[in-house]
Formats: sequence, C-alpha cells, structure tokens
Amino acid sequence: MTGEKPILGLGLSRVLLSHGGGGSQTEALLGEHFFPHLIAPHGERRGDSAILSAGPARIAFTTDSFVVKPWRFPGGDIGRLAVCGTVNDLTAAGARPQWLSLGLILEEGFAAADLASVAVSIQQAATEASVEIVTGDTKVVERGRGDGIYINTAGIGIIEGDAIPHLARAEPGDAVIVTGTVGDHGAAIMQARESFGLVGPVASDVAPLGGLIDSLRAAGVAAHVLKDPTRGGLAMAANEIAEASGVAIRLDERALPVKPSVARLLDLLGLDVFEVANEGKMIVIVPPGEAEPALRGLRAHPLGREAAVIGEVSASGDAIVTVTTRAGGERMLIKPAGEALPRIC
Amino acid sequence: MTGEKPILGLGLSRVLLSHGGGGSQTEALLGEHFFPHLIAPHGERRGDSAILSAGPARIAFTTDSFVVKPWRFPGGDIGRLAVCGTVNDLTAAGARPQWLSLGLILEEGFAAADLASVAVSIQQAATEASVEIVTGDTKVVERGRGDGIYINTAGIGIIEGDAIPHLARAEPGDAVIVTGTVGDHGAAIMQARESFGLVGPVASDVAPLGGLIDSLRAAGVAAHVLKDPTRGGLAMAANEIAEASGVAIRLDERALPVKPSVARLLDLLGLDVFEVANEGKMIVIVPPGEAEPALRGLRAHPLGREAAVIGEVSASGDAIVTVTTRAGGERMLIKPAGEALPRIC
Repeated sequence: MTGEKPILGLGLSRVLLSHGGGGSQTEALLGEHFFPHLIAPHGERRGDSAILSAGPARIAFTTDSFVVKPWRFPGGDIGRLAVCGTVNDLTAAGARPQWLSLGLILEEGFAAADLASVAVSIQQAATEASVEIVTGDTKVVERGRGDGIYINTAGIGIIEGDAIPHLARAEPGDAVIVTGTVGDHGAAIMQARESFGLVGPVASDVAPLGGLIDSLRAAGVAAHVLKDPTRGGLAMAANEIAEASGVAIRLDERALPVKPSVARLLDLLGLDVFEVANEGKMIVIVPPGEAEPALRGLRAHPLGREAAVIGEVSASGDAIVTVTTRAGGERMLIKPAGEALPRIC
Repeated sequence: MTGEKPILGLGLSRVLLSHGGGGSQTEALLGEHFFPHLIAPHGERRGDSAILSAGPARIAFTTDSFVVKPWRFPGGDIGRLAVCGTVNDLTAAGARPQWLSLGLILEEGFAAADLASVAVSIQQAATEASVEIVTGDTKVVERGRGDGIYINTAGIGIIEGDAIPHLARAEPGDAVIVTGTVGDHGAAIMQARESFGLVGPVASDVAPLGGLIDSLRAAGVAAHVLKDPTRGGLAMAANEIAEASGVAIRLDERALPVKPSVARLLDLLGLDVFEVANEGKMIVIVPPGEAEPALRGLRAHPLGREAAVIGEVSASGDAIVTVTTRAGGERMLIKPAGEALPRIC
C-alpha cells in the first residue's frame, strides 16, 4: 500500500529487536522517528530524567517499561526490576525518589499466583527504596499478544538544593568509580534463559540505590556525575558521559570488580563485560581529591562494599572511551550497536 | 508445581481478558491481587490521579497504558489516545495537565512509517492539550510477543488553588451533565475491527479536554465532580461517583446525546450505549443552580457544543444508579462486569 520509508541512517523500514537494546540503534530509532520534536527541547535533562519546576519545587520525572524475559530470574523479578530501574534513574539525576506509577500489561492466562508474587516483589522493593506507588493502571491483552507481564513505571523525585550531578559535568582529572561488581544482571538473565550449571552461582544485582548515594553524600562528596549502567552496560554509560561532557575517559579493565562466576559465564558466551547490563550499580564521577572519601562513603553501605576506582577522565576534547585491557594493551570502547541480550530489562 | 491459588471472589486462577475491561472484574483483580498495600493508603486520590505535595506545590500524578486494537481507527490512533487519556485523567482531578512521560513497547517488525505517523499524532495531541512530553523509553519485543505497539503515558498536572472536583463531592440535587455525544469511541473501534458499512460515519471522539474545562471555569462554575467516562462508559463512571459520594444518581436515556450512526451500530451489536467507552467526554456534576451557566460555558467551546443535562443526583444514601429508559420505564444501571469490547483503549 504505502511505500515503506526506510529508517534514516539505518536503511531499514521496520523495527528490529536490536532497536530495543539501548545502544546506538535505539538512539537512531528514537532520535530519528520518535523523540525529535516530541521531547520538549527546553526542559532541563539529567540522564533519563527531566527536571521540572512545579512552583518553587524542582522535581525529576522519568519512565521505563520492563519486558524482561524471563520475568523471574535469580536475584529478582520484573516487579523488583520495575521499581529499582525507575528509582535508580531518579537517583542518578540527583533527586530523592518519592512516588511511582505502575502500569501493567498482562497477557490473558497469566497465573494469579504469579501476579500476586510480583505484587509482593514490588512492595518489598518500594519499601527498600522508600518510595510510594501512588497510581496504577492495568490492561489485559489476548493470549499470544504479550508475554505474561510487562510493567511500566514512571517516577517522580524531589531535587534538593545543591544536588549537582549531571552527565555533562565530568572534568579532566576526575576519578571514575563503579559502586560494585559489574555484569551480574545480564549474567543472571542468561543463566535463567539457558542452564549453565558449571559457572557457579549467578544472581542479578537489582537493587534501589538511593541509600547508597545518601551514604556517598554523608561522606561529604558532591559527585560530578551519577549514571546507572543498565542497557548497554558500562560501554554505553561511559560513552554517554564522554559525549555529554566533551571528555575522553580511560577505564582499566584490571580494576573492574567482576564476580568469577559472572566472568566465566560471559567468557563462555563471548560477551564483553563492559556491554552487559547492571541493575544495582552506579557510575560515580568525582573530583580527584574526593575519590578516597567517595570510596569510604560508598563502602560504608551494604550495596557499595566492592566500590572501586576503575578509571579517570583523561582529557577534554574528543569524546572517546578507551580501556586498558588485562593484558596491558589499549582498546577503544564504543557504544554497543546491536542487541547482545534482548529483553534484559 | 505450585498449586494454583484462585483469584478471591472470582474463583479463577488466571488472568482473563475480561479483567482488563475496566469494570467490576478489573476492580476485583486489582483490589485483591495487586494494589492493596501497594498503593499508598494515605495519599489523597481524585479518580485515577494521586494528589501529591511537592514542597508548597500540589501536583496530580496518573498513568495509563494503551493497547487499543487496531492501533489506528477512525478519528485517531494509539498515539492521540495515549496523550488524551492521561491528560483527561489529570483534568478530571482538577489539575492543569503539564508534563507527560512516554513509554513505548514495540513489536519487532512494526513499520517505521507507522511509528513515524504515531509520533506525529502524539505531537499534535500534545500541542492541542498544551502539554510537553518530557521523558521517554522504548523497548522492543520479539515478533508475536506484542501487537505492533503498546504505549504507556504517565502525566503530571499542577493543582491550582481552588479546584475542588472530586468523585466524592456529588450532592443530592446536583445536575449531571455530559459534555457531548456518547459511545463514539467504542463504536469507532468496532467499526475499525469489522466493517459495518450501513450505519453511516462513525469516528472516535478522542480529544484533550483541558480547554473545555477551562471554558466551564471561565463561566464561573466550580464543578463538584469531573469524571471521564472511558472504559466501562457512563455505567462505570456513574456508579463510581455514586459509591464515592454515597448518593443515588438518576439518568435519563432520552436526554442522552448519541449520534444516530453510533446508535445504529451499537443496536446492531446489541451493546448498551451506557457501557461503551468515550475518550473525549467528561461527566460534569454541578449544583442545581449552576447547570445553566455550566451548559453555557461548555457549549462555548468547540468540544462542548452538544453538552446536555442527562440526570441528577437524586438522593443521599444508597449508592445506586437508575436510568429512565426511552420508553419511560426505569432500570438499574450497574457496573459492567465483563468485557464487551476488549482492548478499547
């Protein structure tokens, strides 16, 4: 009927699974088809949140849909993920997460007992995160038109006076910290999909990070950047920071905390730990003199015990990310283009 | 494996399509499985919105997912619906709609041209409604695991000083007004699914109602209740108001504005116009002395030309809704239980 109009720059006329991977193909799809002219251009943005002024109050507002497959996995389920994902986006914006909305899309035939267990997970995660679910909606689609359960959460956080973290505030000399082991969430999803009995225990790190960042603040540290490395992993997050700040970032693979079982599983699958999603970790970028107090503050919290400096902002200018490999070589770290792990969140 | 726990009160152990219909089965599913203990009990609620205090500002917050099938229909598409549905919930809460989030769940294979056309619809509807889309997210699911496109919108509105509408504020003697013809949206969806060539033109009424309610306010009318009769139609909305306010409501079918083509189509399908969804209408309940100015204010706006008084709040006490039929008889109007038109929104 109508001619198919190619997706600009990709030469494709249909949505591909890789468009949902959170990498450069997602950016191309959204940047060219959906969000130009849609997202208000003058709104202040911090990562995935918009910063809004409601009278004298400043609020952060964000949304995420969750289609993780399977919906239950070692270490969590879609309910916990839906709360933590949105809470962590607000935390990364320097906001105190406060209220969530909850939109369910259920597939006809989804078991009531499973629905009840997801409700319990949501409640527990909301309690941990000190947020309230204040509004909700449910839709049901025919059997074969969904995949059990999809969840959307939107969240509102309050911005307090002096919170300054912003993707664009990384400066040369700053230390790049990750708050704990990486790759756990992606590894847990792979583990749940297939059975890799040999690698040892693997579980998602999915957790709300507001308390951890409070602990950082209590140590007197005002981070330049907070960024949760979810879809696209550290590779996507570091490149987004490099682009927004106009800086080069150098990471050291040897400093990266990775659980041995996760490393074995990712090796087995040929996946790059830098590209694998995390759901309970934050990248924290601080001035060089604040790296030590930042580590102390983070490690004082149960979710930050394994916090480590993994690199530095090496220069202003070219927005590139490089990695010193375990063998001591150097490689470029680019945004993942495609979809190593579809439906990771 | 695990025993199947029946959905209390329904004796069912699985989600049915009828649980998504917005009627009493949806209430049962949500009330018993999902939202107890989840939705913060102390938050003020107005219809589908939560009312929140962000410092000195008061905001309304609401969410809706849209799974309408087909996603394009006479008079609109899922994009326009997703904007208007959330905007109208905020308007019904007495808030000025301000910001929306946009969560897309796309099925692999969805045409890029269709995505672009939905983006245009969203943009146009947002402009009409004077709201900004400020944050968004996209997920992609495998072919056969979605239905082209699902959209979630969450919305924030600002509550201005003296806005008082609330489901619980209907009082005996109040006039019940509907802002225009009813049944159009449901009829348009049926028309799009099947082909009923004989009935004449039918199109969805989907529209943002903020301006219409501004026109009501400009006429000096402070409505007791505003309620958008979407899923479950007038029957659901009137019963919700009757329950929340503890009043009986009497509607007059002879006063109900219905387009002849819509009436013919619904007759053909054996559907009750009181149960059919609307997406561009508001029920407005005002003190008896304000019915005339309310009609004048509403009719002064293009979306309110056919506003009509369709009944009254007849007594306090029993929360029942009755209808005087076209033949002059009287019948009870109860909440629709099941699912006459699945995936209407």
